[in-house]
Amino acid sequence: MSPAPTLQPGIDGSFITVFWPGGRSSRYHAVWLRDHGQDAASRDPGNGQKKLSATDLPSGLCIRGATLNGSRLKVSFDDGSLTWLDLDWLRRHAYDRTDGETLIPKGRKTWAGDLDADGVMESFPRVADDPAVLEKWLRWVDTLGFARLRDVPAVPGAVLDVIALFGFVRETNYGRLFEVRSEPDPVNLAYTRMGLDPHTDNPYRDPVPTLQFLHCLENSAGGGESNVVDGFRVAEILRREDPARFALLSRYNVTFRYCGDGRSDLTAHRPMLEVSPDGQLVQVRINSRSFQSLTGVPYDLVPDFYAAYRHLEEITRRPEVSVTFRMEPGELFVVDNTRVLHGRGGFTKTGLRWLQGAYADIDGLRSTLALLGRRHAA
Amino acid sequence: MSPAPTLQPGIDGSFITVFWPGGRSSRYHAVWLRDHGQDAASRDPGNGQKKLSATDLPSGLCIRGATLNGSRLKVSFDDGSLTWLDLDWLRRHAYDRTDGETLIPKGRKTWAGDLDADGVMESFPRVADDPAVLEKWLRWVDTLGFARLRDVPAVPGAVLDVIALFGFVRETNYGRLFEVRSEPDPVNLAYTRMGLDPHTDNPYRDPVPTLQFLHCLENSAGGGESNVVDGFRVAEILRREDPARFALLSRYNVTFRYCGDGRSDLTAHRPMLEVSPDGQLVQVRINSRSFQSLTGVPYDLVPDFYAAYRHLEEITRRPEVSVTFRMEPGELFVVDNTRVLHGRGGFTKTGLRWLQGAYADIDGLRSTLALLGRRHAA
Repeated sequence: MSPAPTLQPGIDGSFITVFWPGGRSSRYHAVWLRDHGQDAASRDPGNGQKKLSATDLPSGLCIRGATLNGSRLKVSFDDGSLTWLDLDWLRRHAYDRTDGETLIPKGRKTWAGDLDADGVMESFPRVADDPAVLEKWLRWVDTLGFARLRDVPAVPGAVLDVIALFGFVRETNYGRLFEVRSEPDPVNLAYTRMGLDPHTDNPYRDPVPTLQFLHCLENSAGGGESNVVDGFRVAEILRREDPARFALLSRYNVTFRYCGDGRSDLTAHRPMLEVSPDGQLVQVRINSRSFQSLTGVPYDLVPDFYAAYRHLEEITRRPEVSVTFRMEPGELFVVDNTRVLHGRGGFTKTGLRWLQGAYADIDGLRSTLALLGRRHAA
Repeated sequence: MSPAPTLQPGIDGSFITVFWPGGRSSRYHAVWLRDHGQDAASRDPGNGQKKLSATDLPSGLCIRGATLNGSRLKVSFDDGSLTWLDLDWLRRHAYDRTDGETLIPKGRKTWAGDLDADGVMESFPRVADDPAVLEKWLRWVDTLGFARLRDVPAVPGAVLDVIALFGFVRETNYGRLFEVRSEPDPVNLAYTRMGLDPHTDNPYRDPVPTLQFLHCLENSAGGGESNVVDGFRVAEILRREDPARFALLSRYNVTFRYCGDGRSDLTAHRPMLEVSPDGQLVQVRINSRSFQSLTGVPYDLVPDFYAAYRHLEEITRRPEVSVTFRMEPGELFVVDNTRVLHGRGGFTKTGLRWLQGAYADIDGLRSTLALLGRRHAA
C-alpha cells in the first residue's frame, strides 16, 4: 500500500493543506474545492459537465470539515453543502505553486533547420490501421506542428481521408479542398509558378484554419521544393535578439485582407505575434502578401514597427531555421498553421506540379489524441 | 470639381504631409508609402495580394519626390523605386491620428434588455431572394451579434440552407448539425429539460465556433423560452463597476473542457474575457458547465478571481441585460458566439421542444456583407 496523504486545516476555514507522500504540499481554497467538487450534485456523472455556477459559490465560504476516505477527499462547508474530490485529480490540478511563465506553451517543442524531415514521416496505411501509429503521428503535429505522410493514394480527394482519421475539414471560400497548381488567371499567388516565402495561411481569416494539409498528386516540374519554418522558434529568436521589437509586434494589431477571387472580402485585425495574457505565444501570423495595411500603430512608432517586421521576416529566411524537402506523388504534409510557416521554391514551366490542399482544426486533432492516450492509462 | 489636396515634403525625406480639402492633414512615412504601393509591381492587380515583403523595404528609405496626378499620389524613393497610391484609399487609411483606444471594437453596438427582439426579425424567403434584405439581416449579426428569422421551413436540415446564404458550416464532434431536445442519456446538459443559464457555446474548443444557429422544428412544451445577453455589454458593466475584477478575468487563462460523449476530449486554456493588445474586447467565454479547472491563477489571487467570476455571472443574470422570446416552429436565431450568450428556461415533460443547431464562422459572414456593401459604392 502506498503511503497516504495527510491533511491540515487552515486556521480560519478558508483553505486546507494536503501533504502528499514524498514531501510536496498543496493548499486549496474552500471556494476552489466547492467549485471543483465531483459528487453527482456538483458535476454530471455521465457527461462530466459542471452543475454549479459562480452564483452557487457563496462569497466567504468556509470549510467546516475535511477527511480522507480511500482515494477521496471529503469536504463539508459552512453553507451546509458537502462534496468530494478524487485525490489523484486533486494532485494533478494543484494550483499552489509558482511556475515561471514561459513563452512556449507546455507540450510544444520548437525546432530549427536540423529537424530531420524524414523523422516525422509515416505511412498512410499504417496510420489508418494502427492506433499506436496514429497516436505517434498526431503527437508530432501536436508537439512539433509538422508531420509528413507517404503512401497516400495519389488521387484527388485523398487528403480528406487523412483528415477523417482524426477530425473535421474547415470549409472556406477555397472549398473543402483546393487545387494548388499554376493557373492562367490566378485568384491567389499560390496558384502560380512563383516561389512563396515561408508564411502562415489565411491570416485574413478570424479564426484562421488551425491545420493545413498539402497532398502531392504530381510533381514532374523542376524546382518547387517545399520548406517549413517553426514560427514559435522564430519568435523566440526575435525576442532574444531584440525584446523591444518582439514587444512591438505583439502589442499592435495589423490588418490582413484578401479579396482576390471576386467572391470574398476577408479582413482580420490581429497582431503578427499573438501572446496570451499569461505571456505564452498563442499564434503567429506572418504573411507579407496579405498584410494589407498598418493603421493601428501610433505614427511615431511606425518606423520602429517596420524595423521589427523586417527583422522578423529576415529570421524566417535564415537557412538555419528552414527545413526543406521535395514532395513526391502520394506524399502529404501537415502544419499547425497557428505556428509553422510553409513555403516553396519557384518551379519550371515544363512538367506539372499539382497539390491539393485542405484545412482542418487542431482542437479536433488534440481531442482524438487525448482519447488515444487513454489506452495507456487504462 | 472638388478641391485637390496639397503636399508638403518632410525635411529629411522620411515622411510627407498631405493636406486634405477641409483642413485635416495626414503624415505618411516613406517606408509606409513604399509598403502600401498600388502599382502592379508592388501589388498583384488581379487578386490584390502584396508582392513586396518586409525585406524589400530598405531600412532608412527616403522619399525623393512626390506629386499629385489626378486621383493618385505618385512617389519616388532613393532606392530608385517608384509607386503610386490612390488618394481616396490613402485618406481612408490615414494612420496619423490619436484615436483613443476603446473597449468595444468599431462597428459593434452593445445592447441590453430593451433591445426589441422583433426588430431584428426577418423572413427567410425575403432574405434569400433580396440582397438588400440579406445585407440588412447580416448587418444585425455583425453589429449586434444577434438576429432572428421566421418562415424557415420547419423541416430537419433547413438551418443549413440559412448558413449557405452567406458562408460555411463549421463541422464538429456534434456533427454538421445537432439535435437539441430532451434525451434519455444526454451527452450534454443541453439535451435535457433543464433550464440553461446564459452561456457561450464550446469554450473548450479553440477556436470556438464563431456563429451559432438554433432552428425550431417543434415547440409544444410549456416553458423553454429562449434568452440572449450581450456579453460585451456585460463586460462593459463589470469594468465600470469593478475595473480590478475586469482586469483579473482578462489577465488569466482558465481551463475549459468537454469529454461528455465518449468520442471527444476537448480542452482549451483561454481567458473568460479576452482583450486584444490594443485594449479591445475580442471574445467572452462564459460557461460555468465547462469551466473545468482553475490552475493558472496564482494561489493568493484565487479568492479575488472567484469574486470576479461571481460578479461577472451575476451581471449576466440581471433581468435588465436579458432579452427573452419564445421560439415557434419555423423560427431561427443566430448569435455571434464570441460575444452573445444564449440560454433557455426549463420546459415541461408534456409536449415536445425540438431545435436543430449548427455552427458557422463569422468571417465568412462579414466577407459576404462586405461584398453586398459594394453595391452601394458602385
